[in-house]
Amino acid sequence: MTQRFTLSLDAMGGDRAPAVVVAGIGLALQRYPAVRYLLYGDEAQLVPLLEAVPAVAAVCTLRHTAESVGNTDKPSHMLRQGRRTSMWLAIQAAKEGEASGVVSAGNTGALMAMAKVMLRTLPGISRPAIATVLPSQRGEVVMLDLGANSDCDAQNLSEFAVMGDVFARTVLGIANPSIGLLNIGAEDMKGNDAVRTASALLKASPLALRFHGFVEGDDIGAGTVDVVVTDGFTGNVALKTAEGTAQLYASFLGAAFGGSLLARLGYLLARPALTKVRKRIDPRRYNGAMLLGLNGICVKSHGSTDEVGFANAIGVAADLVIHGFNDRIKREFSELKISGVMSAVVAGH
Amino acid sequence: MTQRFTLSLDAMGGDRAPAVVVAGIGLALQRYPAVRYLLYGDEAQLVPLLEAVPAVAAVCTLRHTAESVGNTDKPSHMLRQGRRTSMWLAIQAAKEGEASGVVSAGNTGALMAMAKVMLRTLPGISRPAIATVLPSQRGEVVMLDLGANSDCDAQNLSEFAVMGDVFARTVLGIANPSIGLLNIGAEDMKGNDAVRTASALLKASPLALRFHGFVEGDDIGAGTVDVVVTDGFTGNVALKTAEGTAQLYASFLGAAFGGSLLARLGYLLARPALTKVRKRIDPRRYNGAMLLGLNGICVKSHGSTDEVGFANAIGVAADLVIHGFNDRIKREFSELKISGVMSAVVAGH
Repeated sequence: MTQRFTLSLDAMGGDRAPAVVVAGIGLALQRYPAVRYLLYGDEAQLVPLLEAVPAVAAVCTLRHTAESVGNTDKPSHMLRQGRRTSMWLAIQAAKEGEASGVVSAGNTGALMAMAKVMLRTLPGISRPAIATVLPSQRGEVVMLDLGANSDCDAQNLSEFAVMGDVFARTVLGIANPSIGLLNIGAEDMKGNDAVRTASALLKASPLALRFHGFVEGDDIGAGTVDVVVTDGFTGNVALKTAEGTAQLYASFLGAAFGGSLLARLGYLLARPALTKVRKRIDPRRYNGAMLLGLNGICVKSHGSTDEVGFANAIGVAADLVIHGFNDRIKREFSELKISGVMSAVVAGH
Repeated sequence: MTQRFTLSLDAMGGDRAPAVVVAGIGLALQRYPAVRYLLYGDEAQLVPLLEAVPAVAAVCTLRHTAESVGNTDKPSHMLRQGRRTSMWLAIQAAKEGEASGVVSAGNTGALMAMAKVMLRTLPGISRPAIATVLPSQRGEVVMLDLGANSDCDAQNLSEFAVMGDVFARTVLGIANPSIGLLNIGAEDMKGNDAVRTASALLKASPLALRFHGFVEGDDIGAGTVDVVVTDGFTGNVALKTAEGTAQLYASFLGAAFGGSLLARLGYLLARPALTKVRKRIDPRRYNGAMLLGLNGICVKSHGSTDEVGFANAIGVAADLVIHGFNDRIKREFSELKISGVMSAVVAGH
């Protein structure tokens, strides 16, 4: 972890910016002491925050801009009019090599649009995807796409499989990750054209040995595979349904433990165990969705997260830099191209 | 609950048939003492089971058939070759009015195909949908479609909204149910063509006042709306993701409570509360998916459920009969037709 590099941060993105951004850097300092930050945002707000925490100020360079992207701003409008926003400038720093990666908790659509325009997609990849790591009964699962592409064809899904595979090997350190395609049944005939064709393509590719086949929604939590591939519509709904179910379970637990004196006594004794579970599924722990497939590292933090969550998003970007994820994916795609897989994918479609 | 009617049961459908079917009737007897059953299946297996429980035998009429649909049988093949199976004959009894509804825990694809051919869709409905009731923080939510239709257009989704609305009003007894369309964001521009067009159609329909707009995956567990409308691909993935997340949460709880002596002591005191929660989210409690939009009542039980789950599936069918669901939906659709809504839906597409 002594690798030295800089991340650029959109200090004005997110519901509780810029305070959460500055506090998040403070927490990230412990795990990544060698990382430096370029902070884009309003100096009138940022200077007092930095002055209050000298350890954070020492690793930050402040770049003032008065403009920022709002949550309801349209991505297309921001592409034309948002070139002085903290989000645009933070991505630009990554594009120009001043920073090794960029993190923002702002408007997802605008971030995706700006990152695509400025960083552009890697050779061989037609569309970037949003990916995240989720807890499962067997460890961790990487799932993509989570909302960048509402409609995906078989080629898009196959490319997501390659990106997920590289991520699992490089960042999660899984030697032979298994890849599953999210569907509504395990049989070949199930689902729509896109998943059936993508399955056929993957079975004929060098990924075939690691391709598990179709998986279903409950396989995400079960950890049946290491990589879950799906279109952005289904992936977004699945991710948020999982979050909603965890909240429902927690609220039922809360109600049950408040029920009687005995239950409340039980709660006191059970509390350490319950806290452990809450930590294991804490969405802040898994905060930091990666925009994979771009010519640069770009991480989206949840807009409503706190400093713990923002520190994790910084950690996700740092890990991608440390593991050289983009170089690996570039190399793998060119090797796949040479071996004819991606052209088979293109031809097959 | 003194209404007297008959349900036909596919006694050979499901992993643990016919024992679970007979035991399920035994449990359902308590809640629905006036219901009678036509049991289709192998008499060599069924006669001893019925002889062992005279109370169940007293409400059942056994109709022998040696054939049944297997889990891997193709629906199209069963439509041609399966006319002597317990599933086919049970649906036929509902079609011919011998039974007021049919329940099967067998092959979903075959059940849907046979039910469509025999019962046919209700006037005004182009495609039936699979619906179920789920627990939420604010009570219960009905969600559809859960897998009958992988690809849905705006018209399909609008029809599902009408069916879900009628179900919530008649069976769940909610006077003014709110309806949400599952999407990946709340803004108008989010999602794919089908959901955007369906939203516009619903806003221009008599359902407009009850149409909440777009909802996201976490709104299911939150109970933001009473009816969640989606295509069968997304709905199936969302349902199974919710099940998988609940299992993940339960397994994390189990691990945490097994951690130390103190945690195990805590578990003993917390057990009544935990059991309460487990019951509240018990998938058996919500077993019984309804095939809505057909000219008859047809309920699909989970194939791996036990007698508690199967009894609930019987209860779902019984409730649909008792509340006259199909008559209500027929009336509502003809009223909508008269008021020009469904033709607007058709024209709008």
